[in-house]
Amino acid sequence: MIDGLEILPVRGIGDVVAGDDLAELITTAAPWLADGDVLVVTSKIVSKAEGRLVEVPADGPERDAARAAALESETARVVARRGPTTIVQTHHGFVMAAAGIDASNVDKTHLVLLPADPDASARHLRDALRERGLDVGVIVSDTMGRAWRNGLTDVALGAAGIEPFRDHRGETDPYGNQLEITQMAVIDELAAAGELVKGKIDAVPVAVVRGYPRTGIRDAEGARVLLREAATDMFSLGTTEARAAGLRDAAQLPDGPKAALPGNPVDPAAVERALTAVDFAHATVLQPAEAIAGSGATAALHLSTRDASPAGWMRLGADAHRLRAALAAEGVITLSLPHEDGIRLDLSGA
Amino acid sequence: MIDGLEILPVRGIGDVVAGDDLAELITTAAPWLADGDVLVVTSKIVSKAEGRLVEVPADGPERDAARAAALESETARVVARRGPTTIVQTHHGFVMAAAGIDASNVDKTHLVLLPADPDASARHLRDALRERGLDVGVIVSDTMGRAWRNGLTDVALGAAGIEPFRDHRGETDPYGNQLEITQMAVIDELAAAGELVKGKIDAVPVAVVRGYPRTGIRDAEGARVLLREAATDMFSLGTTEARAAGLRDAAQLPDGPKAALPGNPVDPAAVERALTAVDFAHATVLQPAEAIAGSGATAALHLSTRDASPAGWMRLGADAHRLRAALAAEGVITLSLPHEDGIRLDLSGA
Repeated sequence: MIDGLEILPVRGIGDVVAGDDLAELITTAAPWLADGDVLVVTSKIVSKAEGRLVEVPADGPERDAARAAALESETARVVARRGPTTIVQTHHGFVMAAAGIDASNVDKTHLVLLPADPDASARHLRDALRERGLDVGVIVSDTMGRAWRNGLTDVALGAAGIEPFRDHRGETDPYGNQLEITQMAVIDELAAAGELVKGKIDAVPVAVVRGYPRTGIRDAEGARVLLREAATDMFSLGTTEARAAGLRDAAQLPDGPKAALPGNPVDPAAVERALTAVDFAHATVLQPAEAIAGSGATAALHLSTRDASPAGWMRLGADAHRLRAALAAEGVITLSLPHEDGIRLDLSGA
Repeated sequence: MIDGLEILPVRGIGDVVAGDDLAELITTAAPWLADGDVLVVTSKIVSKAEGRLVEVPADGPERDAARAAALESETARVVARRGPTTIVQTHHGFVMAAAGIDASNVDKTHLVLLPADPDASARHLRDALRERGLDVGVIVSDTMGRAWRNGLTDVALGAAGIEPFRDHRGETDPYGNQLEITQMAVIDELAAAGELVKGKIDAVPVAVVRGYPRTGIRDAEGARVLLREAATDMFSLGTTEARAAGLRDAAQLPDGPKAALPGNPVDPAAVERALTAVDFAHATVLQPAEAIAGSGATAALHLSTRDASPAGWMRLGADAHRLRAALAAEGVITLSLPHEDGIRLDLSGA
């Protein structure tokens, strides 16, 4: 039960430079800070205090080159590109346009990088404030774009002294339903709430959320737990990039009989869809008994042509590869076995 | 300049049923509402008041079937699937798991659908409150997952009486830099802030944000402007789905000479990467002059084999199609022209 929250701007922090003591700056600007408050600190001033700046020429192609070099060094992998926009996953694991590198609110000869370890930055600031007798939560925030929705919102890059999630697992609603929604990313919501009283050029780099119950004030997980790993992310690549990866998959379908098939059942409807997709007329479905001999196949197709010329055979080869790609799109793994009468495709479920 | 915000829970609204007057329920529960407040209203109670429920069996396979039917009717297109999770774009344009259909906080024989037009719902509630002499902004909110980040946050499905974006375009920071960040999705941030004082089972379906300056109190755009259209969304499909689309693209590369090539220049490095990717040994790069004759090609490759048997020709046909897929992955469009001596691929930039 929450009685209500206050979101308060912290004004008068002024320009932050490398080596500045943020705890000193913040407590001076906000002597009203109290135990239990949650500080939402714009990552920009954390980066500046930590000296996470790179020197760049003020303009010209040299500036563009230096900026590209900074982006490359901050990038773990490229997620998507379109026109001048590059969305990357940083070494921290954040998926952000331009790796979060920013040229605003800094002089023209510097770029600001993200803090090297925003959770550590949050812990250090929280510890420094504890030494001053204040027990507060700290969120290091930044502005990010999202898939599917226009506009930007602030989210948490780092956190200390506050639980990242509010977990509803195991709760039951008044109707006796177990809740399907489990984990609310509350530090992202707190970062968003803080942004509402900040501003991009108002020199309000810190907001305070007062009244939010911090259930876990031990320094546990940090904001790192909000990062979804690429392997489990359903949107780990841009659509164009993933589609190109599918084309590369098609270029590199393994040639038989080197690879063994896994021997899983094949959905006949999937085969039908693939045959329809490539408009393949001269395919004969072989009996499973014939198919299984010699590999892990659980189905097989025999492909033939009526044009027994070099051009005819080449077309059959190309069409067979089209069919293999269409089957792969349906989750069917194939091996191609060309012989003097045509091509036999051995099939298996993935 | 904002002096600070208050986020206040509205308690005691109780169960909402079809036909309920939300303006009446909210003003009774929160007689302290004031001009300038922004109401964040959970879409669930809007749906219930509007009767956006479907009757379903309480359990068993019939319930699953009814739920699947409801999902299908709410779905404009499937964005991604993994295991039991289906992420779709709804007819409104929202990208949400299970089309936002929810079985919580409702009896076991009903599912709650999203409001049919959440912007209209927000406008109607705002208008009803104006008739009671209150000038407030209204946001209809719901909980959504995100790409790349674990945990859920609340966002705005509908809005009235509040500008969806805060736009920084044209602003200049104290260093003279034009701001690169343009549009903050403030109604999403307000929805997130509201969620912090609500709760999933606490019967707090409404939060009030007090102190946020509503610059645009005309009913302009609504939350609809936050929806990114699939055509301009870099993440319009799940990675697995887009990769399968790439495989289907490979299956359906157009056969020449039906289609004309656009005649754009080809990057020689892209051709080199494609040849390397498919380990293609017997390709000869033709001179542009030869290539251009007969189509919109700006480059061409001649592919040959040393094995002049049916199996050899079929392998050449398949390998040529692999190469076409690899070239397509690099953005190079091809036409395939098999003849008695091998295959000529005509190339053009996209």
